Amino acid sequence: MTLEGYSLPRSPEGRASLVPRPPWHYVGDFLVIEYWADPDAVQAVLPPGLEPHPDPGRCAALFVDWQSCTDGGGELLDPARSQYREFFIVVNALLDGAEVTTCPYIWVDRDFALARGWIQGFPKKLGSIWITRTFGLECRPDPGIGPGAAFGGTLAAGERRLAEGAVTLERLALSGPTHNGPPLVNVRHFPRLAAGRHDEPAVHELVRARSRDRASSPIWEGSATLALHGAPSEEHDRLAPVRLGRGFRFTFAYTVDDLETVREL
Amino acid sequence: MTLEGYSLPRSPEGRASLVPRPPWHYVGDFLVIEYWADPDAVQAVLPPGLEPHPDPGRCAALFVDWQSCTDGGGELLDPARSQYREFFIVVNALLDGAEVTTCPYIWVDRDFALARGWIQGFPKKLGSIWITRTFGLECRPDPGIGPGAAFGGTLAAGERRLAEGAVTLERLALSGPTHNGPPLVNVRHFPRLAAGRHDEPAVHELVRARSRDRASSPIWEGSATLALHGAPSEEHDRLAPVRLGRGFRFTFAYTVDDLETVREL
Amino acid sequence: MTLEGYSLPRSPEGRASLVPRPPWHYVGDFLVIEYWADPDAVQAVLPPGLEPHPDPGRCAALFVDWQSCTDGGGELLDPARSQYREFFIVVNALLDGAEVTTCPYIWVDRDFALARGWIQGFPKKLGSIWITRTFGLECRPDPGIGPGAAFGGTLAAGERRLAEGAVTLERLALSGPTHNGPPLVNVRHFPRLAAGRHDEPAVHELVRARSRDRASSPIWEGSATLALHGAPSEEHDRLAPVRLGRGFRFTFAYTVDDLETVREL
Amino acid sequence: MTLEGYSLPRSPEGRASLVPRPPWHYVGDFLVIEYWADPDAVQAVLPPGLEPHPDPGRCAALFVDWQSCTDGGGELLDPARSQYREFFIVVNALLDGAEVTTCPYIWVDRDFALARGWIQGFPKKLGSIWITRTFGLECRPDPGIGPGAAFGGTLAAGERRLAEGAVTLERLALSGPTHNGPPLVNVRHFPRLAAGRHDEPAVHELVRARSRDRASSPIWEGSATLALHGAPSEEHDRLAPVRLGRGFRFTFAYTVDDLETVREL
Repeated sequence: MTLEGYSLPRSPEGRASLVPRPPWHYVGDFLVIEYWADPDAVQAVLPPGLEPHPDPGRCAALFVDWQSCTDGGGELLDPARSQYREFFIVVNALLDGAEVTTCPYIWVDRDFALARGWIQGFPKKLGSIWITRTFGLECRPDPGIGPGAAFGGTLAAGERRLAEGAVTLERLALSGPTHNGPPLVNVRHFPRLAAGRHDEPAVHELVRARSRDRASSPIWEGSATLALHGAPSEEHDRLAPVRLGRGFRFTFAYTVDDLETVREL
Repeated sequence: MTLEGYSLPRSPEGRASLVPRPPWHYVGDFLVIEYWADPDAVQAVLPPGLEPHPDPGRCAALFVDWQSCTDGGGELLDPARSQYREFFIVVNALLDGAEVTTCPYIWVDRDFALARGWIQGFPKKLGSIWITRTFGLECRPDPGIGPGAAFGGTLAAGERRLAEGAVTLERLALSGPTHNGPPLVNVRHFPRLAAGRHDEPAVHELVRARSRDRASSPIWEGSATLALHGAPSEEHDRLAPVRLGRGFRFTFAYTVDDLETVREL
Repeated sequence: MTLEGYSLPRSPEGRASLVPRPPWHYVGDFLVIEYWADPDAVQAVLPPGLEPHPDPGRCAALFVDWQSCTDGGGELLDPARSQYREFFIVVNALLDGAEVTTCPYIWVDRDFALARGWIQGFPKKLGSIWITRTFGLECRPDPGIGPGAAFGGTLAAGERRLAEGAVTLERLALSGPTHNGPPLVNVRHFPRLAAGRHDEPAVHELVRARSRDRASSPIWEGSATLALHGAPSEEHDRLAPVRLGRGFRFTFAYTVDDLETVREL
Repeated sequence: MTLEGYSLPRSPEGRASLVPRPPWHYVGDFLVIEYWADPDAVQAVLPPGLEPHPDPGRCAALFVDWQSCTDGGGELLDPARSQYREFFIVVNALLDGAEVTTCPYIWVDRDFALARGWIQGFPKKLGSIWITRTFGLECRPDPGIGPGAAFGGTLAAGERRLAEGAVTLERLALSGPTHNGPPLVNVRHFPRLAAGRHDEPAVHELVRARSRDRASSPIWEGSATLALHGAPSEEHDRLAPVRLGRGFRFTFAYTVDDLETVREL
């Protein structure tokens, strides 16, 4: 008799697992804001093995409204198990001379997405994320998709507003955003609690994300705003924009069931 | 010097008001499930002045994913002030011989929508509502809009699952749902607390909803399921389906800034 | 056949009512911070009929951790129906020459408490309130009740931190706080939606709170801090402290089943 | 330049870490319900290395209302960072012939407590937990501590009620509860995502909890009720009571900064 399930809690049938077994299929509405932060602040969040990007301080902030499921798809009819929203920041760097992005800070509003993120090396905390939607019906409360349509995103966590951004669409983008482009390298990390070994994590490795079955809607671009606010238990505000780039809105889908370990840290 | 604002709390500038001044512009994705409940149970929830409908027990259950704003539209960029989800039941009846619907039970997930509902005669309580979404991108976690696409809705309140339903699309509807058709009559009610007068509400009136600038997407119809679950502080489960009709999915928009008082109760 | 229940939704058995029939019995842990705001800001929130207090700008901020029930007490074993936390501000004034307090702003974290507040003239909105607790066990995470024990309170609403305060106990108080002393007068207000009559609320009356069976623990007093933060949909920050008084901590109980109308507004 | 912090997200100053560095000091109000489940169901949740307990099916269910902090104690004045509630089940077993307990299922309502649990081998998911409180003031909404005082607890997760229990106090206990007694052994588990290795967790070890500075209030005992409800993504209901034992209420404190690895699994 064995316990089943991909994640805790493991159980006789494996149904109780917080994170179901991969593959995980995702689709989401993206709001991407390209910007530059203070280069020293960006360098300060690079994990071991990453070097500063030649375009110093290059970052992106992303608000994403997600729906996800496993192969069976049963989560889609119990949408509390499939929907979540998240906000994250990626900074640009070099890994062995090649351009990469890495995610130092991310917040998500559901437990299954939090744990699934840790497994992939996303350092997720819980937060409350709101993102303007379009419904495809011409009317006042629907921004629509077209020149002048404005989309906002906000993040609160720990009882405080931590971020807010907006994108006002101008035109279909000739090419999509680049500040958040793959490859994405993150740090998988799981602490140790044994006395005297609190500084020797049980898992501490640089990983490169792998995905497949990527699909995208047409991408709109426009002007953007972004503000990051400090809090006693947060440091993301050190990555506040010193210069703003373009904003983008689109829908994106992909599937994840693999992860490459780059090196042990 | 006067206090400003359409609702409590009234304040020097009127910005603090929980419910902003009408008009209120709404757009939302609808999941409508037509059904019949026990006719006695339906009759038992009719407010004074309404008579049973000739098609006894006729009801509809609705899951709606809303975005709303006022004329300024500023809520759209701070979407915590514009988005909410709700579940409600309408029953069919006659008012002075004319067909009407009335809403005995409704749950919503945000405070501004709760208070705005009470002002219109919707007897809202807080709940947690989840509704499958489509993102318009062909991929596994997106049901899409077409034959076989399945959409679910769930309601929890008071720490319990209270309702769940689903619609599996079959075809574009020749005509839309009728069980939830206007005119809608509700009861505006505001209690009194003076000792000895707890049974003499300060406001108790039958009202007929008025709206304008109504718009709809194409309407899809299909098969439907619905379950209503009981709880110590709920009675909606008496309106559980004895026979299911058709399910519908569409996007709908309208504007509200008026309400007609039919009679004092 | 009639619909039963003290509040919406009224139902065949009256069990579905969001607010159960009075009397309402309350007990709660109080953190009271006495202070003075800008006198003009205080005058600006006085409802019609109230005059400025001779001690200009006198206010109190209160964080309260509540448990409440009706006569049957059944809510106590389903504590999601009995527990809630709230933060509110009271300002001091004169009514017909007599000292009164009135509550311009208040936030609470549960729907039944929100609606019950509106019925009493408390202009409640939903928020998230946290208050340090004591457990009566000497240990590091328990501040205890005694000199040096520190209790904090925080409020967030609309995705933003709106208030935070703290009281560090010094000694048993010779007498309790006075800035929040009764009588309390509030404004009961319920809007009208009929076109052209949005400025003619259906209910708009000055009311004086009545309570009975009041009980209190010993009251501790000490030094206090308080900060009020602004937000686009809030105006409470105009009542930010210009001078701080004393802080108090105690447990208080009372019963409410009456309300006196002072005058129609 | 290195990233600091005990858990993700690691940051330049280490302030952003979801779980702060141990030691962790806890105090909480406990509701413990001793019971027996179906012995086969208990055996089915035992991790490798544990054998059935000689008293087959022995379990306890616990509702706990917690406050916790680190050495600095700063969380106590920002109580959103220190307070949480949880519900968990422990089953009894033998490890190398010695009596132990192990926790197959646990729900908690805050992210920092969820992650801190995973580090200790508690398989936490998010849920909503409510527990009757006493305020130490004789009044109707306070059950007090004494014969006849009744305390309830409820758990909801995934939009469903999953558990509810109650304890009605009778007398001071001659000795405390035993079904939840230490030593506690759990499974630390952290998945792997590399393709083809989903069944080879990166961390999978049997661990024995260590704590210090344990303190307890007097313990009251009485009669108890408990119900566990099933759900599609849960299996805890297989541990539903077939026989109830006694219930207990008390306050308990301890400190954790160590964990013993029993064996790799």
